[in-house]
Amino acid sequence: MTETKTLSLAKIEALAFDALVAAGTSPENARPLAVATAQTEADGVASHGLAYIPIYCEHVQCGKVDGTARPSITQPRPAFLLADAATGFAHPAIDAGFERLIPLARDQGIAALAIRKSYNCGVLGCHTQRLAQAGLVGLGFTNAPASIAPSGGAKPVVGTNPFSIAVPDGQGGVAVLIDQSASTIAKSEVMKHAREGKPIPEGWALDPEGKPTTDPQIGLAGSMAPSGGYKGVGVALLVEVLAAALSGATLGIHASPFSGTKGGPPRTGQFFVAIDPGAADGAAFAQRITDLVGAIHAQEGAHLPGDGRGAKRTRAASEGVAISTATLDRIAALSG
Amino acid sequence: MTETKTLSLAKIEALAFDALVAAGTSPENARPLAVATAQTEADGVASHGLAYIPIYCEHVQCGKVDGTARPSITQPRPAFLLADAATGFAHPAIDAGFERLIPLARDQGIAALAIRKSYNCGVLGCHTQRLAQAGLVGLGFTNAPASIAPSGGAKPVVGTNPFSIAVPDGQGGVAVLIDQSASTIAKSEVMKHAREGKPIPEGWALDPEGKPTTDPQIGLAGSMAPSGGYKGVGVALLVEVLAAALSGATLGIHASPFSGTKGGPPRTGQFFVAIDPGAADGAAFAQRITDLVGAIHAQEGAHLPGDGRGAKRTRAASEGVAISTATLDRIAALSG
Repeated sequence: MTETKTLSLAKIEALAFDALVAAGTSPENARPLAVATAQTEADGVASHGLAYIPIYCEHVQCGKVDGTARPSITQPRPAFLLADAATGFAHPAIDAGFERLIPLARDQGIAALAIRKSYNCGVLGCHTQRLAQAGLVGLGFTNAPASIAPSGGAKPVVGTNPFSIAVPDGQGGVAVLIDQSASTIAKSEVMKHAREGKPIPEGWALDPEGKPTTDPQIGLAGSMAPSGGYKGVGVALLVEVLAAALSGATLGIHASPFSGTKGGPPRTGQFFVAIDPGAADGAAFAQRITDLVGAIHAQEGAHLPGDGRGAKRTRAASEGVAISTATLDRIAALSG
Repeated sequence: MTETKTLSLAKIEALAFDALVAAGTSPENARPLAVATAQTEADGVASHGLAYIPIYCEHVQCGKVDGTARPSITQPRPAFLLADAATGFAHPAIDAGFERLIPLARDQGIAALAIRKSYNCGVLGCHTQRLAQAGLVGLGFTNAPASIAPSGGAKPVVGTNPFSIAVPDGQGGVAVLIDQSASTIAKSEVMKHAREGKPIPEGWALDPEGKPTTDPQIGLAGSMAPSGGYKGVGVALLVEVLAAALSGATLGIHASPFSGTKGGPPRTGQFFVAIDPGAADGAAFAQRITDLVGAIHAQEGAHLPGDGRGAKRTRAASEGVAISTATLDRIAALSG
């Protein structure tokens, strides 16, 4: 059993902020990352919470990310925003972009934000849900270094490239939150099994010849299995076209890894689309979402991908979150 | 072996047109359906080509579709078009909508077309590829009567809801065309096995309790298996939110079937998004797409979903397409 200590969300945010700043991140860039870290812990996604901060710090120190970058936003067309993250973290570019994307989507009915020269954006649903909280349908796409092979091939050409959709409930909350990668399982799970020397279930990864393997090391040298076979490749390609090709970010085939210190900045990208349900009929939209969600919850045992997150978050806000002391020790060492 | 007769694309279009008009479809509504039918045959998707015309005709005659409907288009926001298909075929509404969507996307950078009170739109990629041929990234989503159950449940709540992305090659052609349903296999395949009294492979469909079945009849009474498990449900929900909830179309849980004559008009919907790669950098976009497609084709045996369609279409244009004589007999009977 892992030894843990329970911390408030404010404390989690402060720990993340201090470590990021100590590593050379500017306070204005560290803040949105620290906020997202606390939120991710509140949602119960520990792998991308405080445990991820040492990787962020390492990447600032080795130059994979410019901790002091200042993102810039332009508006090349009336409904299209373009953010240059300037080799910095994705979070400040997303913050700056959303400030303009939200009112723009309300005016235009639909608007896009493309982000280039960016980095791993953490949990994608953390970002799209902010669009839903603003009453908009939020779509998000983010690309990653190539790890999925094309159908009939064995060499990776696209990342595990997740997409997300966040749906507003018409009352300032989030009715549905989907955030899923194009692979059967997250690459971090295969890496975890490799570290622990445990075999992986068949269907998670493929060897360098494209054949199934249960050896995580061989899987990491090969490719990640796409979810549902060629249809997972299709989802990864959708994301690659939007988040990398359209935004002008680095393609997964050219991007340096999101782990380790080698290869220079990955400079990958994101693409967000915000749609105002009020453009057609906001009240009818809210009713349809209530109907759809109701038809799912009416079935015993049935659930939506984002279910349970709200309850976890409420509990975390009052009770805090249990963090492994090993992680806390690593964070403490980073902050000096 | 099926007996066939080879027909030119013009002849296929004419046969489809005559049958639709004989069933009571107005000539202006029959034309786009007939054009799509010929194109679908050229692409080698026989199931949705001439073989589908008897179903369209039956649905005009029983009132599932109003063959003489006139779609109307409004523009509630600068980048958002809304089409009311008026219980008619999807094709004329899409045609009328695209006429405005294409120039709008070029002006705005991104634009949407939501279609309500519509119907089965046939092969979704037939529509999105027209956006790519106009130099735009085309996204398409279309909902269907519920046939996929939520995770943990057994009762269908969303359709096999396909999405499509068509990517321009920068020279008036289509570099990538993805068009895939959210289920492991098309429902029409399960129906075909049921008609032929053949068992289906495990993993295609589930029984009314949500357990795997190899009996197609039991599968049709139960639900279609989502591709990749809960991630297929996620894709279907994405499509349902856009194509039905946002457009104001009928949700899959309320829609009448796309087959048979019962239940009145399904009045389902579509959602299209068109994005101009020139909003960020058109030349850099084309280069990235060339790189990505090149990395796939450089691998022996590797292929993209839309590969081979172009060659088939070129051959069909000069040599025609072999059509089953049984289908031709059915069409001849319809045209009187």
